[in-house]
Amino acid sequence: MPNSEFSIHNSELAVTVHAPATVANMVCGFDVLGFSLAAPNDVMHLRLLEQPGVVIINEDDFGLPTEPTRNVAGAALLAMLRAVPEVPGVEVRIRKAIRPGSGIGSSAASAAGAVVGLNQLLGNRFSKPQLVEFAMFGEEVASGVRHADNIAPGIYGGVTLIRATTPTPDVVPLDAPPLFVTVVHPQIEVKTSDARQILKRQVSLQDAIRQWGNVGGLVAGLLKHDYALIGRSLEDVIVEPVRSILIPGFREVKDGSRAVGALGGGISGSGPSLFMLSQDEATARAVETVMRDTYQRLGLEHHIYLTTINPLGCQIVETA
Amino acid sequence: MPNSEFSIHNSELAVTVHAPATVANMVCGFDVLGFSLAAPNDVMHLRLLEQPGVVIINEDDFGLPTEPTRNVAGAALLAMLRAVPEVPGVEVRIRKAIRPGSGIGSSAASAAGAVVGLNQLLGNRFSKPQLVEFAMFGEEVASGVRHADNIAPGIYGGVTLIRATTPTPDVVPLDAPPLFVTVVHPQIEVKTSDARQILKRQVSLQDAIRQWGNVGGLVAGLLKHDYALIGRSLEDVIVEPVRSILIPGFREVKDGSRAVGALGGGISGSGPSLFMLSQDEATARAVETVMRDTYQRLGLEHHIYLTTINPLGCQIVETA
Repeated sequence: MPNSEFSIHNSELAVTVHAPATVANMVCGFDVLGFSLAAPNDVMHLRLLEQPGVVIINEDDFGLPTEPTRNVAGAALLAMLRAVPEVPGVEVRIRKAIRPGSGIGSSAASAAGAVVGLNQLLGNRFSKPQLVEFAMFGEEVASGVRHADNIAPGIYGGVTLIRATTPTPDVVPLDAPPLFVTVVHPQIEVKTSDARQILKRQVSLQDAIRQWGNVGGLVAGLLKHDYALIGRSLEDVIVEPVRSILIPGFREVKDGSRAVGALGGGISGSGPSLFMLSQDEATARAVETVMRDTYQRLGLEHHIYLTTINPLGCQIVETA
Repeated sequence: MPNSEFSIHNSELAVTVHAPATVANMVCGFDVLGFSLAAPNDVMHLRLLEQPGVVIINEDDFGLPTEPTRNVAGAALLAMLRAVPEVPGVEVRIRKAIRPGSGIGSSAASAAGAVVGLNQLLGNRFSKPQLVEFAMFGEEVASGVRHADNIAPGIYGGVTLIRATTPTPDVVPLDAPPLFVTVVHPQIEVKTSDARQILKRQVSLQDAIRQWGNVGGLVAGLLKHDYALIGRSLEDVIVEPVRSILIPGFREVKDGSRAVGALGGGISGSGPSLFMLSQDEATARAVETVMRDTYQRLGLEHHIYLTTINPLGCQIVETA
């Protein structure tokens, strides 16, 4: 029996969304800078339901929960549905390509893709800042913290700055120049909670000044399309020295990548993935070789992605 | 007797330079962001000498030293002359309008104006980064530290970011939108050394992250000409809470200025001057009234400057 209040105008019945991987903590920009990758992407199909609630169907082998309150996409969709009481429910089928625990925003992709998809079904009534807030409920399920480091670039695309998180996330999209990104995911586990715990609660004022000089330089380099300045600014004197010890091969990958011409890079999110930025594809391929050689020598299984910064974020690829 | 090696081509015999006041430590941008003011300006006349050394002639009542090694302009000129052994000497007459100890870059104006003037006499053979380095020898005389916080905006004009100071200052000019600046100099003394000593050597990681989010936001706001973002980013959770207690009237001026529409502002350099940025002149005038009322009520003598950001820095205004 159709719900009499359920009337969605100018909208589709079903959508397919590509939800990209994202890199948070862009070297010096710990907790504030992140960007969206052109690949890998999760694929999500959403359709409105006439019965209330959220239905999750996993189409991959990751064994993620299907109970909406325990599922990242589910929690984000439930938060969004609370804002549209006239809409009863939604079904989402998820085929994840972004491996959970890889450090390239797997949970954020599920949350961001879900809310972008539902928003399309609702006639795009919500703004990007609102979508970020809904999606953060998903991140809360994944990590216990309602952070937007990966959500913001997932929804805005490109490179984003989160100037501040309170009272609400202040997301600033940064119009970056074309950049090639080489990402390596060594198959080791780094728990976000461990990566958080290892951080010092206090830092020296001198290091903090160096860091905010670099953040300023990186933002300016991106907006001015000044590759050399981007490269000089990709320096982290606070988090990387501590966290990099959790990641075998870090130093070899970083130094080797710089040696073959990469602008710079570091830990993606809280790891274990590492990313390197390059101005051209040939350099990004040389970085790929450095990464492969390093982890083959260490005898560690790994995946490598050679991709670009994705200026668009989550994309509706099909409607019906 | 003319020195046989002394041949300067394409150059003038004498120049007049306007050397502007500058604001360092642009709220969140402690030690990294600064800008140049359209007024006040020191006026400096320089001419090459055939006898070796630097001759200082003070044309104001500030009683500054005339011995070159103890004079800010003198030390900067001596450093520069060491790089041009074929040039024997230079005379500089200085009429300062920027009161020493005011916190708006009085010493930097002397140093920057001197090297810009001498560079013109030498046919502009030195680059801006080189001029910054010469002028920093002047700052060393003034404060014991070879810092570039005021030198960089004095030489580049506009708003500058000093991304890093080692190995050499990495100065990034930021193309800011038009901004009105109201500066008040209450006639109290705040020693730079005291203002340094009061700072905490350690800061919390949480505050540091908030600060570098704001630095990123301020740089983005300036480059994107986004006044609202500039306003939101003018927040300092690290230095201002400590240093503002040294400046009577700080809270009244800041809150009152925001209430009449200023984008924001704070302590200029290490004080005692305060500055506020506004998008239009009417607001900057309303800020002037807030400042005047505050210091009249407190019974403190004060100077107020209502000016703009000077996109040019030190300027050659006359050659002969």
